[in-house]
Amino acid sequence: MTGPVERDVGAQRRVVAAIKREIAGGVHAPGSRLPSTRAFAAEWGLSRTTVTAAFEQLAAEGYLETRPGARARVAAGLAQPEPRSGGLTTARPTELSAYGRRLASASPIPWTPQPFVLDFRYGELAGGDFPTLAWRRALANAAMRRPARLRYGDPRGLPELRAALQGYLWRSRGLHCEADDIVVVNGSQQGLDLCARLLIDPGDRVVIEDPAYHLARQAFLAAGAELAPQLVDRGGMQTGGLPPARLAFVTPSHQMPLGSILSASRRQELLAWAARNGASIIEDDYDAEYRHDAGPVPPLRALDRAGSVIYLGTVSKTLSPTLRLGYLVLPPGLREVFARAKRVTDRHAPELEQAALTELIANGAYERHVRRVRRRNGERRAALLKALRERLGNRVSIAGTDAGLHILAWINGLPQSREAELTGRAAAASLGLYGVSGLYDRPDDPNRRAGLVIGYSALDEAQIATGIARLDTLLRQLGA
Amino acid sequence: MTGPVERDVGAQRRVVAAIKREIAGGVHAPGSRLPSTRAFAAEWGLSRTTVTAAFEQLAAEGYLETRPGARARVAAGLAQPEPRSGGLTTARPTELSAYGRRLASASPIPWTPQPFVLDFRYGELAGGDFPTLAWRRALANAAMRRPARLRYGDPRGLPELRAALQGYLWRSRGLHCEADDIVVVNGSQQGLDLCARLLIDPGDRVVIEDPAYHLARQAFLAAGAELAPQLVDRGGMQTGGLPPARLAFVTPSHQMPLGSILSASRRQELLAWAARNGASIIEDDYDAEYRHDAGPVPPLRALDRAGSVIYLGTVSKTLSPTLRLGYLVLPPGLREVFARAKRVTDRHAPELEQAALTELIANGAYERHVRRVRRRNGERRAALLKALRERLGNRVSIAGTDAGLHILAWINGLPQSREAELTGRAAAASLGLYGVSGLYDRPDDPNRRAGLVIGYSALDEAQIATGIARLDTLLRQLGA
Repeated sequence: MTGPVERDVGAQRRVVAAIKREIAGGVHAPGSRLPSTRAFAAEWGLSRTTVTAAFEQLAAEGYLETRPGARARVAAGLAQPEPRSGGLTTARPTELSAYGRRLASASPIPWTPQPFVLDFRYGELAGGDFPTLAWRRALANAAMRRPARLRYGDPRGLPELRAALQGYLWRSRGLHCEADDIVVVNGSQQGLDLCARLLIDPGDRVVIEDPAYHLARQAFLAAGAELAPQLVDRGGMQTGGLPPARLAFVTPSHQMPLGSILSASRRQELLAWAARNGASIIEDDYDAEYRHDAGPVPPLRALDRAGSVIYLGTVSKTLSPTLRLGYLVLPPGLREVFARAKRVTDRHAPELEQAALTELIANGAYERHVRRVRRRNGERRAALLKALRERLGNRVSIAGTDAGLHILAWINGLPQSREAELTGRAAAASLGLYGVSGLYDRPDDPNRRAGLVIGYSALDEAQIATGIARLDTLLRQLGA
Repeated sequence: MTGPVERDVGAQRRVVAAIKREIAGGVHAPGSRLPSTRAFAAEWGLSRTTVTAAFEQLAAEGYLETRPGARARVAAGLAQPEPRSGGLTTARPTELSAYGRRLASASPIPWTPQPFVLDFRYGELAGGDFPTLAWRRALANAAMRRPARLRYGDPRGLPELRAALQGYLWRSRGLHCEADDIVVVNGSQQGLDLCARLLIDPGDRVVIEDPAYHLARQAFLAAGAELAPQLVDRGGMQTGGLPPARLAFVTPSHQMPLGSILSASRRQELLAWAARNGASIIEDDYDAEYRHDAGPVPPLRALDRAGSVIYLGTVSKTLSPTLRLGYLVLPPGLREVFARAKRVTDRHAPELEQAALTELIANGAYERHVRRVRRRNGERRAALLKALRERLGNRVSIAGTDAGLHILAWINGLPQSREAELTGRAAAASLGLYGVSGLYDRPDDPNRRAGLVIGYSALDEAQIATGIARLDTLLRQLGA
């Protein structure tokens, strides 16, 4: 609103179009309030200036009613979606279920990433790291082994893949399980969603890290959970005085987003809490393959004697997020109902890609690939840490470097209230930077510094150095 | 129990093992009642003799308590699942959500098909019909076009696939929509599940065909729906006097399982009912590509002026059920919330297979393939009708032959109460036959004949002829 940032006209246009689409689509009812410009700015990674300008344009066009100091309202006269070419003339607003209404009223997160020239977005990988030839060969082999009869498969996934994963988890994580404890899912998001559906009723409490992975939070909120956020520090999530709850969500091997590793004593404390409360723990081990300086830490699941832990793994960080392959390792009491839920939800994961992954694990190519990308990402991490040290010195405090594919950079000279200004300026310069504050339960703590979640696995060393040099310039412009 | 059928020892062993697993997995609580032997027999496609023998064995081993005339109970002392090798010693029964409890108490349907020598199971395709080379080439091309950056995609699916599907639906079904009306899903089951989640709250009424596709029924029941089953006749689902409801589920182009085509007047009546009640209609067009004698019937969605219809399509019947690719065509008011739900549910469908399907549609190979398999399945259908006519004559009444990949054979001399005896005897002879009665809301109507849902798309002509000859023998043994 008052920041010195120039408007990003392209981003403003995108925001205007997105909100019009949402109004036309019935997401925002006439007369209802939109999320604040601050919330929009944090979630879209844009400056508030840009978002405020977009809101003003929408008000001028009659879509919104704005008033200083209040959240914008959708204009009351906008009941009907526009008529469209499909021949629909009187589309009525469809009533949604409680689940649908919770989803519709959540604040929007754009799913089409902006095409930044340099992008530190977390969770993305370099295309060149993908083992294209090995994957093509494995897919082709799987296609050639096509059976005489094409039929729906086991909802838990191919038995041979579950057997291969059982061995992989033992070798790589010291995790002992049976193949029948495993359910193959469409990426870890489906694992989270199945847990939310099967274990949470509206109003149930869920312990969650603060800050937390935003799509985990969304899955629990959509299920109607009441979140009990627990602050994260260098030892991971704080586990003293946890309230009773149905479920806890943790990322023990590399906290998303702060990067801490959950300490041994907190692991014991969390397991004891779960056993005492009859709660389940989701252990999202998404970054397990990437340990750099840290020694191996056994997963919670390997310490679990009470059958509390649901282990969640994925190949999104080792092969590609576009494959949509992950797996749950379930306690015995939950195997049958998760299999039933997977079947009613979408029958089973696609079989060709399951067969290709089986082949790569079985012939050792997957573990060779993991070692290769671990080394490669270690190089990227070293380049990032070097650039940060040389360019920014003690203007930033770095955390979460022991493991994973992202680090956290706290900006020492910049209060959290100016984080969106930083990321908005970066976006205007086609540099993708992502603030941490939107991942906190309360994104407006005045005592917190601005922080950036810096993902490096999709960039090469030169891009990393250039990106950090640009960050340096931006910070100087902001006086930090 | 009293039938003249010999016991199928292998099937009995499988039932015993499955029920033990379910008890150990906490699906059936100690003291709770199991479904009836009749329900088990119908759903597993086994004889009641076999199921009753399995229950008696479980009672002898102390798992069940049986009493003549009452449903079996799980023995009261069986609280704890067995300890297992994973190191879990005291797995406690996890509390499930209401959704989870509904799923856990549903009667089991085996998902591992039995390896019958001849199998008329519906919904399966011949491996030889799959365009292996074209699919491999398209997958390889997609893998080679891999982008510089691997990132999560649009939850609605690849824009180029949605554009290709838009054109395909217009050419093949006269259905006009926008690419942004389309959400790519993991097979039609996920489409059904998303509709159930977003539109149904527990206690909401859902109009459904009677008999109906069992996994549609399960998806709605798991969401807590109260079903309002409507009998199906030669004109499809009866639409006179439909009660108010939130949702209707129909298969207008080829009713599953009876095979009728929904008449034009009923289409209008159903659409008017939906507009009047603010209800949505799921049009599951799963068999749309297979018209034999019938002229083209436009989909409900093409007649919809009120934005009531959610159109559901799939490639499970044209390419393979193992690919898990389907698509929803949504009314404008539902586009945004379905996209959000897809994202929170599992981010998006796998992109490599989406890209391969895009290429096949865009270069015309998909439609050539559809013409080829339509012709091929027309040949199989002709062989089936010929065998039925020559072998069984008017001992059976055939329905639903105009379209699709299955027909319905009513056995004129056999009451519905003996249907499980027929399918059980067939299973003992390694012939897969599937009764229709389990798909009815009330599987025990004394006035109904036994009926078989005969799928033919995975068999060749010789197998079809042999299978019907065996059916002839079985019917003679049963005196029908």
